[in-house]
Amino acid sequence: MNYAVILAGGVGSRFWPFSRELEPKQFMKIIGQHSLLQATIQRLSGLVSPSRIYVITNKIYFYEVKAQVAKFRIPDKNIILEPQGKNTAPAVGLCAKLIGQIDPDAVLLVLPSDHYIKNVGNFKATLKKAVACAKNNFLVTLGIKPTTPSIGYGYIKVGKKSSGHLQVQKFLEKPDLNKAREYFKDKSFYWNSGMFIWKASVLLEEIRAYLPGLYSSLKLINSVDDIPKVWPQIEAISVDYGIMEHSKRIALIPSNFYWTDLGSWEALSEVFPKDRKGNIVSGNALNLDSQGVCVFSMGNRLVSTIGIKDAIIADTPDALLVCNRDKTQDVKKLVELMKSLNRKEHLAHLTERRPWGSFTVLQQGVGFKIKLIEIAPHKRLSLQRHKNRAEHWVVVFGTAKVVSGHRVVLVRSNQSIYISKGKKHRLENTTDKPLRIVEVQTGSYLGEDDIERFDDDFKR
Amino acid sequence: MNYAVILAGGVGSRFWPFSRELEPKQFMKIIGQHSLLQATIQRLSGLVSPSRIYVITNKIYFYEVKAQVAKFRIPDKNIILEPQGKNTAPAVGLCAKLIGQIDPDAVLLVLPSDHYIKNVGNFKATLKKAVACAKNNFLVTLGIKPTTPSIGYGYIKVGKKSSGHLQVQKFLEKPDLNKAREYFKDKSFYWNSGMFIWKASVLLEEIRAYLPGLYSSLKLINSVDDIPKVWPQIEAISVDYGIMEHSKRIALIPSNFYWTDLGSWEALSEVFPKDRKGNIVSGNALNLDSQGVCVFSMGNRLVSTIGIKDAIIADTPDALLVCNRDKTQDVKKLVELMKSLNRKEHLAHLTERRPWGSFTVLQQGVGFKIKLIEIAPHKRLSLQRHKNRAEHWVVVFGTAKVVSGHRVVLVRSNQSIYISKGKKHRLENTTDKPLRIVEVQTGSYLGEDDIERFDDDFKR
Repeated sequence: MNYAVILAGGVGSRFWPFSRELEPKQFMKIIGQHSLLQATIQRLSGLVSPSRIYVITNKIYFYEVKAQVAKFRIPDKNIILEPQGKNTAPAVGLCAKLIGQIDPDAVLLVLPSDHYIKNVGNFKATLKKAVACAKNNFLVTLGIKPTTPSIGYGYIKVGKKSSGHLQVQKFLEKPDLNKAREYFKDKSFYWNSGMFIWKASVLLEEIRAYLPGLYSSLKLINSVDDIPKVWPQIEAISVDYGIMEHSKRIALIPSNFYWTDLGSWEALSEVFPKDRKGNIVSGNALNLDSQGVCVFSMGNRLVSTIGIKDAIIADTPDALLVCNRDKTQDVKKLVELMKSLNRKEHLAHLTERRPWGSFTVLQQGVGFKIKLIEIAPHKRLSLQRHKNRAEHWVVVFGTAKVVSGHRVVLVRSNQSIYISKGKKHRLENTTDKPLRIVEVQTGSYLGEDDIERFDDDFKR
Repeated sequence: MNYAVILAGGVGSRFWPFSRELEPKQFMKIIGQHSLLQATIQRLSGLVSPSRIYVITNKIYFYEVKAQVAKFRIPDKNIILEPQGKNTAPAVGLCAKLIGQIDPDAVLLVLPSDHYIKNVGNFKATLKKAVACAKNNFLVTLGIKPTTPSIGYGYIKVGKKSSGHLQVQKFLEKPDLNKAREYFKDKSFYWNSGMFIWKASVLLEEIRAYLPGLYSSLKLINSVDDIPKVWPQIEAISVDYGIMEHSKRIALIPSNFYWTDLGSWEALSEVFPKDRKGNIVSGNALNLDSQGVCVFSMGNRLVSTIGIKDAIIADTPDALLVCNRDKTQDVKKLVELMKSLNRKEHLAHLTERRPWGSFTVLQQGVGFKIKLIEIAPHKRLSLQRHKNRAEHWVVVFGTAKVVSGHRVVLVRSNQSIYISKGKKHRLENTTDKPLRIVEVQTGSYLGEDDIERFDDDFKR
């Protein structure tokens, strides 16, 4: 049977300010109505049934993944949590181990969660070929025919054609521009897509051969409960370095669908339609005499430009980036700079997601803070208490079940309730619709850390 | 006696998005702690007493001017209101007429309210010379020694030196770059500053000679009450075209203070300190490998740039401008474009000023709107009623006196009150400190025009 293993633990910073440390790229709706993770899952429809789709991610992203995959009816137990990120080899090894225990003949489609693919029909056809090849005990990788001499991708040099696949001679790291031009001219080079297809059993054999330390660790894991004690000792290493560059059983299936790893704002700009001056507008923007300008805007603010050339403008409620299109690789550096300056804009958006929904800080002033809070259907916040602040809640949509001291009251749309300082309280949405509340906090200290939790559905 | 006439009716759009149609440049705090209007008044301290400082503006700006000049103890009656803007000649003529009735020997210092001046000591010394010259019945203009071959200013060609002033040969319009270079080399050219000093009686004589129609109209005005019926018929014309280019009694006093009319973002950038890469940061910004970038930011949002060259970035809560530094004159065009598209960002800021204070729309959603409202000391809103919305008020600073139906209650900080749909209500600050309120509106229609006013201190 075919299984999918979606790698969703990445923490890249190259899409800042759209992505943040706590909300990485794979969870963002960058193109279209779905997040990149959701689009990855949707591309598998008809190919792998939801009950056989696994998502492996860092444990801090559990509730995010759970919320995002819910609509695809992927069971919660298929979300595999890493206590720490250890790069791709341990992640795919772990999934091979766990799925192999259920189905010794499992064929795994290993897919990054943050790539963009067009021509889904071709993608599925390619995967089917790859599965056939994997059944012959190959580690199969999908190779992308280069369309430009890109310096942003690793390359794979192929050899002769075998039955239905290409033999692999060599994996090559991201080249400089001269090398990239050489590779591009030579028809035997492919981009390394990071998508792999293999039998769980075959991968584990190769891990035993080339990563014996990892193999020993995986032997200690017989269920997800064993992960936390084993994981800290595991060495972080990628599939490419750890396995693919050494294995003698590699096969490449050439692909003829449009693919990009969306490795930078510049890469993203390639998949958007442009006007006749080469401008992209995603959001609310006006360009006057500008060319090659890409505006990506979250929120309603008007972004306007005059006479600007070849720039990426990425606008979010609390942070704006204006970046030369040749410099989008340096967004990483900017994020490092923010860290070193102890700023906070690299960490999270103004709208912060929580297991029960989300909140947005709308305004902070001396002695007060205003939040818009959204509680998902049938979710509740922890039973809690604040030392230094009182809270006024106005329900603007839905109905809230509120615990306030010993009282339990229903607060309906256009009603309000006051939670005094030091009073135990809990906010719950028992309905099938979202609940929206405006919270006005008052007090001398309004930090998120002024919270004492007594009971929490999310074990915080 | 000396009087000042400050021209504060301008409606320029070249500082969008910092300035808006309803909040033009002269009222903005662009540099330092004061608005440009306030800085203009402050420069007169010790030179003209507050009771002899007049501000002429459009009537729509009355409360704004009143609020801004209050701290300088300029009496309200010194704010002269034009029903319509008619350019500068009618404005200065009107002030000459009204002040001349009080003091037939009045010398008027006519000053634009939206310029920037450094070296205030020199400025005052120059004005004193100009006053001495005006007493000899000259129309005196201050000429600025050009420091660049600017195409942004009108020029004045001077002739011989007379007793303490320069004779004027000619007024010249904004030149092209070749002409500007010619003027700049020739030492007999000065920039036209738009600052004039003259006796009220002398100006009126010159108006009679060169603008007889205006003179006839002014004859009909014996008090401010006469303005509304006379003003509509008056022809709009500038002092330069209407009087200065024709009069034989012009004198120029050369000035040796730093002056700019702040005619564009580029002009503004000249008065700000730059780092060693030529970047300006006014607000919250991080520049990485950028040069010649000027960030002007209202609000707290982080503005970041990577590898950007020679751009103006002007950031406000609801609109952002990214403009090539060579194109700042085109901001006007952008504003025209917004008008033609029926947008609203050219009209007002998210924080809108009102005679009683200000409000900021923090968020709008289906069925609700959140505002932060600030009521100035001893001010109150109108007694009013809304057909379609209820209002929840949480006081976060100060104490509110609230009329709600037949009740009058004091609502203190950290208290709240609910105004149901259709109930007459009024909000008042009877204290000496500002009053801050978070308002959560709920209802099916939340437009500002859903208001029925029963009594209003501001006659709206």
